[in-house]
Amino acid sequence: MEDPRDQTSGVQISDAVHPEIYDEEGVVRASFLASIGAAIADRDTLALKHEVSRLHQSEMGDVLEALMPEQRLALVDLMGADFDFSALTEVDEAIRMDIVDNMPNAQIAQAVQELDSDDAVYILEDLDEEDQDEILAQLPFTERVRLRRSLDYPEETAGRRMQTEFVAVPPFWTVGQTIDYMREDNNLPERFTQIFVIDPTFRLLGAIDLDQILRAKRTVKIEEIMHETRHAIPATMDQEEAARDFEQYDLLSAAVVDANDRLVGVLTIDDVVDVIQQEAEEDLLRMGGVGDEELSDTVRATSRSRIPWLSVNLVTAFLSASVIGFFDGTIEQMVALAVLMPIVASMGGNAATQTMTVTVRALATRDLDIYNAGRIIRREAMVGAINGVIFAVLIGIVAGLWFQNPDLGGIIAAAMVINMMAAALGGILIPLLLHKFGADPAIASAVFVTMVTDIVGFFSFLGLAAWWFGFF
Amino acid sequence: MEDPRDQTSGVQISDAVHPEIYDEEGVVRASFLASIGAAIADRDTLALKHEVSRLHQSEMGDVLEALMPEQRLALVDLMGADFDFSALTEVDEAIRMDIVDNMPNAQIAQAVQELDSDDAVYILEDLDEEDQDEILAQLPFTERVRLRRSLDYPEETAGRRMQTEFVAVPPFWTVGQTIDYMREDNNLPERFTQIFVIDPTFRLLGAIDLDQILRAKRTVKIEEIMHETRHAIPATMDQEEAARDFEQYDLLSAAVVDANDRLVGVLTIDDVVDVIQQEAEEDLLRMGGVGDEELSDTVRATSRSRIPWLSVNLVTAFLSASVIGFFDGTIEQMVALAVLMPIVASMGGNAATQTMTVTVRALATRDLDIYNAGRIIRREAMVGAINGVIFAVLIGIVAGLWFQNPDLGGIIAAAMVINMMAAALGGILIPLLLHKFGADPAIASAVFVTMVTDIVGFFSFLGLAAWWFGFF
Repeated sequence: MEDPRDQTSGVQISDAVHPEIYDEEGVVRASFLASIGAAIADRDTLALKHEVSRLHQSEMGDVLEALMPEQRLALVDLMGADFDFSALTEVDEAIRMDIVDNMPNAQIAQAVQELDSDDAVYILEDLDEEDQDEILAQLPFTERVRLRRSLDYPEETAGRRMQTEFVAVPPFWTVGQTIDYMREDNNLPERFTQIFVIDPTFRLLGAIDLDQILRAKRTVKIEEIMHETRHAIPATMDQEEAARDFEQYDLLSAAVVDANDRLVGVLTIDDVVDVIQQEAEEDLLRMGGVGDEELSDTVRATSRSRIPWLSVNLVTAFLSASVIGFFDGTIEQMVALAVLMPIVASMGGNAATQTMTVTVRALATRDLDIYNAGRIIRREAMVGAINGVIFAVLIGIVAGLWFQNPDLGGIIAAAMVINMMAAALGGILIPLLLHKFGADPAIASAVFVTMVTDIVGFFSFLGLAAWWFGFF
Repeated sequence: MEDPRDQTSGVQISDAVHPEIYDEEGVVRASFLASIGAAIADRDTLALKHEVSRLHQSEMGDVLEALMPEQRLALVDLMGADFDFSALTEVDEAIRMDIVDNMPNAQIAQAVQELDSDDAVYILEDLDEEDQDEILAQLPFTERVRLRRSLDYPEETAGRRMQTEFVAVPPFWTVGQTIDYMREDNNLPERFTQIFVIDPTFRLLGAIDLDQILRAKRTVKIEEIMHETRHAIPATMDQEEAARDFEQYDLLSAAVVDANDRLVGVLTIDDVVDVIQQEAEEDLLRMGGVGDEELSDTVRATSRSRIPWLSVNLVTAFLSASVIGFFDGTIEQMVALAVLMPIVASMGGNAATQTMTVTVRALATRDLDIYNAGRIIRREAMVGAINGVIFAVLIGIVAGLWFQNPDLGGIIAAAMVINMMAAALGGILIPLLLHKFGADPAIASAVFVTMVTDIVGFFSFLGLAAWWFGFF
């Protein structure tokens, strides 16, 4: 079959694709990395530029991440002014810092001017203030003021993520005037899907999607087709909250306004997608007891970041151990209890993790609230009871046969039911309470929940055994 | 301060906002629900329509989820033809099915015609085939063919998620002709950001973003400004893979093509955002040992879906218990071992979960690959050794003092170092191996990883004690 792309001769190729740089797994091909590596080793600037010139910024980012640290620096160095700084927005923070720290501020200032303001801010915000000031001082006035304004908003706000390039027109213009303006003005943002309507003081009056403009006759006035900007985002709004607005209302871009409702920038869906990914990743990592880790972090940074969580777990583990210690006489008389007790704790821990995961996720997506909390708690308790009974019977039979002791089987079964109920209630109530008191349930739930199932598991099993066999 | 919205009088309000339906937590206000509930109870259709008429589809979805099941059905019933079906794309599957199952197929057929094709497919795909056929049979021919085509693509593919409404023009048209066409044609999609260029057989030649059209003079030919559609998505491509393209290349929409490279639809970023959310949610739930659960699932469904994971855990728990059983004589002679052994296992389990979480996430985002696997494994082993030594010292001192037995302190310290190393290696190698053999590391890693840390923890601690104290 003929390749349809053969028909596109004469077509303007904006930024051509290199599908061949990835293998079927989506990993950068070793052969491509090898030829880049060879060009770097030979300091063959021409060959290097030829290899990477047609890469998309995100492809360049993947290549940078796949290279050795010293190769990265050499590549940036060899590329000189031809290095596309936007690729730095696509790599891990540690790699970005490594590259930027190795460049003179004058070169960064030069490169930053080529970038959209949101990309420039993304790179500048991680630098220390001194470097930031030195770089900003070397920029043209308008550029400097724009970037400074973004950087003055707190981290993780809409103001930090916004792009300060946008198209804005007065309400009394016609569609024809607007189109002519866009045809003539060379200072338009690289991409846009919406134009904004403002008064002479930059107060936001409304917005129009581009398709609305294309559907309207030239004589129609802008104010007739603009719509109220219902989702204007205050620059100080948390980026996660802004992302939620984008998701809920299927926005492609939204106006960002300052405290006086003046238009200061535009937040676009591509940045929001990054925020959504980042927030989902944070939740997952927090549930697993790790912080803002990246694969490129050092051993020292990784080790240190994991210690707090392990320390909390150490305390709760000693608490559970002290419950066992309370029954040391019982265990001495029947060592089978020591063999079986981790099973009760482990099953409870697993059941609790299931409930907790669903709860934490439902809280994050706001699916769990005061209206359905009661219903969900009842449901989880029921599920805990049902699964508790099912596994109690199983474990009771196996344990009874294993130690040739039906009483022991009955006791572990009873302890299982108790612990599965505790798991269900702990798995939902602990995240709910943490959320209620303003703590992040993703980060703190797991440790408390397993503490509950360990303690209840050991106490119910050993306690029942001590009582039944009269070991007190 | 004056509200800027006061200046927007005379503005066309496309779908007005109800910010007051949410409280500060983002939860639907009880007062709003109460007034809807009252209107439903009174069967006051007029009041009901007044309350909900200005809601965005996603707001309506939130209201439906917050209502009692019988209120939902009554609301849909009372609203009749005024009920906006697109709200059903914003609620949990169980709620959607409950509402749709209670409607005659004729009414569904009527409602589906008002929807964009992607929303219609989203609702139809969960129905059984018989109902689907009956509903499709009542649709006009073009509509029927379009929906049928989408439904014929496998679940979770681009073909299922695409919208079949799009704007396509021939390459020899001018910008002026294209704009005039859009001004006249009333059959345009509700929203679009890109128009496609096709040959007479619908073969895709290129695409143009709307801002490119607005920048070009009327006399410019489409083929001069169109760009090659580098990211045309095969209709059979998995939606997750398509989402990855959107993320990597910051796409707003992409052409979907059939096996013959003919344009069949367009995939838009708002649907992709949903896919990204859904996939991130799936990963999180799988890591927690739960499947595709929704809060609205029944007790029975929830209980059943959680049993497989608990069963696997049961087997591994018995395996660990049998390791302890092997040392029952040792424990009998020193019951302190039974008290302390869960600490070793628990710390190992936690450390392993940290490593595993980072590994699973890195695999999902393709940050972990053959180039850096060796380096990351070494890093994790180092982190495991360092944190192992730190916590070994802590635990050793506390345990030695607790039982007044320095030897016991030394033994638990040694076992901790061993288990933390095992945790680090298990935490990274198990997900890597599962991934290599095509299994989903998110779903299966946790159970194997904790099995490793339990078994190594119990075996190293009890084994070292038996050897040191000569209990064999």
